[in-house]
Amino acid sequence: MNYKLTLNVLGIISLTVAGLMAIPFILALAYSEVATPLAFGITILALLVVGIPATLIKAKDKKLSARGGFLIVSIGWIYISLMGAIPFCISKAIPNYIDAVFETISGFTTTGASILTEIEALPKSILFWRSFTHWIGGMGVLLFIIAVLPKGDPTIVHLIKAESPGPQFGKLVSKLRFSAQITYGIYIVLTLIEVIALACCGCSAYDSFVHTFATAGTGGFSSYNASVAGLNSLAAEIVITIFMMIFSINFNLFYLLIIGHFKNVIKSEELRTLFGVFIVSAFAIGISLTVTKTVGNFGEALRLASFQSASIMSTTGFSTADYTAWPAFCQVILFVLMFIGGSGGSTAGGLKVSRIIISFKSGLRRLKTSISPKSFSPVKLDGKPITDELTNSVNNYVCMFFIIVGISTLLVSLTSPSDFGLLENLSAVATCINNVGPGFGKIGPTGNFSSFSILSKLVLCFDMLIGRLEIIPLLLVFYPKSWIKN
Amino acid sequence: MNYKLTLNVLGIISLTVAGLMAIPFILALAYSEVATPLAFGITILALLVVGIPATLIKAKDKKLSARGGFLIVSIGWIYISLMGAIPFCISKAIPNYIDAVFETISGFTTTGASILTEIEALPKSILFWRSFTHWIGGMGVLLFIIAVLPKGDPTIVHLIKAESPGPQFGKLVSKLRFSAQITYGIYIVLTLIEVIALACCGCSAYDSFVHTFATAGTGGFSSYNASVAGLNSLAAEIVITIFMMIFSINFNLFYLLIIGHFKNVIKSEELRTLFGVFIVSAFAIGISLTVTKTVGNFGEALRLASFQSASIMSTTGFSTADYTAWPAFCQVILFVLMFIGGSGGSTAGGLKVSRIIISFKSGLRRLKTSISPKSFSPVKLDGKPITDELTNSVNNYVCMFFIIVGISTLLVSLTSPSDFGLLENLSAVATCINNVGPGFGKIGPTGNFSSFSILSKLVLCFDMLIGRLEIIPLLLVFYPKSWIKN
Repeated sequence: MNYKLTLNVLGIISLTVAGLMAIPFILALAYSEVATPLAFGITILALLVVGIPATLIKAKDKKLSARGGFLIVSIGWIYISLMGAIPFCISKAIPNYIDAVFETISGFTTTGASILTEIEALPKSILFWRSFTHWIGGMGVLLFIIAVLPKGDPTIVHLIKAESPGPQFGKLVSKLRFSAQITYGIYIVLTLIEVIALACCGCSAYDSFVHTFATAGTGGFSSYNASVAGLNSLAAEIVITIFMMIFSINFNLFYLLIIGHFKNVIKSEELRTLFGVFIVSAFAIGISLTVTKTVGNFGEALRLASFQSASIMSTTGFSTADYTAWPAFCQVILFVLMFIGGSGGSTAGGLKVSRIIISFKSGLRRLKTSISPKSFSPVKLDGKPITDELTNSVNNYVCMFFIIVGISTLLVSLTSPSDFGLLENLSAVATCINNVGPGFGKIGPTGNFSSFSILSKLVLCFDMLIGRLEIIPLLLVFYPKSWIKN
Repeated sequence: MNYKLTLNVLGIISLTVAGLMAIPFILALAYSEVATPLAFGITILALLVVGIPATLIKAKDKKLSARGGFLIVSIGWIYISLMGAIPFCISKAIPNYIDAVFETISGFTTTGASILTEIEALPKSILFWRSFTHWIGGMGVLLFIIAVLPKGDPTIVHLIKAESPGPQFGKLVSKLRFSAQITYGIYIVLTLIEVIALACCGCSAYDSFVHTFATAGTGGFSSYNASVAGLNSLAAEIVITIFMMIFSINFNLFYLLIIGHFKNVIKSEELRTLFGVFIVSAFAIGISLTVTKTVGNFGEALRLASFQSASIMSTTGFSTADYTAWPAFCQVILFVLMFIGGSGGSTAGGLKVSRIIISFKSGLRRLKTSISPKSFSPVKLDGKPITDELTNSVNNYVCMFFIIVGISTLLVSLTSPSDFGLLENLSAVATCINNVGPGFGKIGPTGNFSSFSILSKLVLCFDMLIGRLEIIPLLLVFYPKSWIKN
């Protein structure tokens, strides 16, 4: 790998995060809070002390291999998580550093799993920073840097590849920097629309921003113990439901919409499947809640079901009800939705709808081939054949994903609390690797991750990062050969 | 497909099962039981009435396509399950026919999941037949037919392929019929050795046979409510532990052992992994049980742990303790072992150790390739490169497997008992599709499957068959195009 270039990029990341942290810092001053201005101030200072010298390092060789790009992204993400956790610690909001790192990784990876037991008691600037990490992590900090920095580098494609979720990396336009700008432009515009919409629903400006950040990044951190139910507004709940689904859509489709290619948008199989699965899930849960008399009337049941289906499928993890008290059928739907996740190229986590489609179709192809062996044809997506290389790589990805789920669950359960069973351990890993947030059993919407041991928390941190960065980039960090200088 | 040939083969299957059922029939007469002689008699008669005319059908075209072979095997398995269930019904041992079919499919697929609540009250001949289905299904009824029938047919390779578990179908010798004979020969010899060993441990002849059938087929039906704990013999427990592992070994290795190729046996990666995973699991569970003071001393803990690890990994499903009361770590190990299963080419279920190895290595290859893209090399097993076609097909299989687990869990939970949660529904599917037997939560070793609805039971029957026949052959039955005459 290219050490000088890596340090240089880490320097830029450092300065960027320092700049972004200025917002909660100003907020802390504006709210006249006690411990938080110092907490953010020290962290910003530390980021500048590391960042400024690092940006001055001049790398002669500006070429970046795929491996180098992947490593920079992983190291960058770990770095901002370690630094982003400092304000929580210094302000005593989360005194334990490991806990603070867990909360920060959960933020940046847009998971939303929390170790906090009492959220509403915390300073407003801290909760703002906590939700803001969702927004930063949603589209990716490196994509942001590529969008805002003046110079374009043709090799940065590997940075974007490592940070963009989904099996296919679709460039919006031929120029990467312009592509990053469009993506972030759409992201910012949608964010502002949601903030305004929530404000129109009667939410305070603070609540509107915090919940929009969590929705846009499909993260799920709320400023209320009761999550979105704490907003106490039916209109806000509906707005958030809609926007959770919007942020699960492949951003390429918004661009196609802008340039007037409506037909291509409507034809998108991933989009249709995303909404198809969402609608079927919402109705199935709604009917189940009504039939089992868990909820009084169908209208109310459908509202709760739509919100929870959107929340889990978009991997946001907000809640308006304790779904762990719902019938098993509803919980199984939500558990399956966790693994499906949103679209590739969105801020959502999970395996991604497009991977599920490709994997399912490749299974179907195998069935057809066993009937007439000569009929072997490529798997198609949106009517166009995709390469066998992509099909195989998707299946490979899904297998690696489940192998990691298995190993992680073993490690998490090794030192898990004695009252946590198979369900809690498995669902903790599932919710973290899919970047959802709440799990099942005692770690559902009303529970939290505080009672897990340090080892378990570190494994879950690893899972959140591996889910967000999609396995390979993060694994490279732990593979000695990838550190060799090239 | 070739309808005449299919009917002809079904006829032969019919006569074979009639012949095999003669044993419990004679036993029923010998024990002077009341309802069972008639029950077995009527079923044998029905099998003969169907079988004799069908065997007389002369198929001019004796060629069998892969599809045709797969279909015959699937239809054959469904047919023997429907017929094998009749004695349970007529004898009133299991009055409900759906329940009886569930129990029979669970028997033939060597799952061992039971809907019976009170086993010891049933007639001996019925319990003998119940365990005997494990032995028949373990190596496969069609393999048996190929081994015993005088005429050899070169196209029967597809029949063996569909019935033999594992990613690779390894012929022992060049001639298939001879290969089937050797396999069944080894199977019978090992069975007899275990029967004698159990008898030497003080078990009655009846108990020895019943538990050997369940061990040899890696099924798990016992004649006691307390499963193997009911034998009340430490020596028998150790014998069964050893034989559960023996029957999880690829039968090709026994053949290599017989012809003196010791080195190849010891070199086998699948064998080493099988025993490596078993030993690590047993020790990990043993230590966990001791440290958490679940069991008084380490010796006792290791004994229970070894038995349960062997039982779950071999997908037998016997028990000597209620592992649902063990710490979460132990349960997670057992849950993961369920999915790993035994070796390909053995009587065990699960994904198979060889598939896990191949899938794991293909993930590792992807990691290496991302470091240096030029280093793309085939995955190796036992030091020999395997084709990319096999690697991709293994990953494809694993993905299809998990997709089916997801869909099945949804369907099972749709009408599951109200006190069954996510854990019961998910583990019911996991234990059935992996052909293990007991699950977790309320369907653990002390529980049973009786309270599931008819719909849930039918889905679980489908899962047991799909696990045993390894997906494609059974799916073909439900795919209209595969029924087209060729």
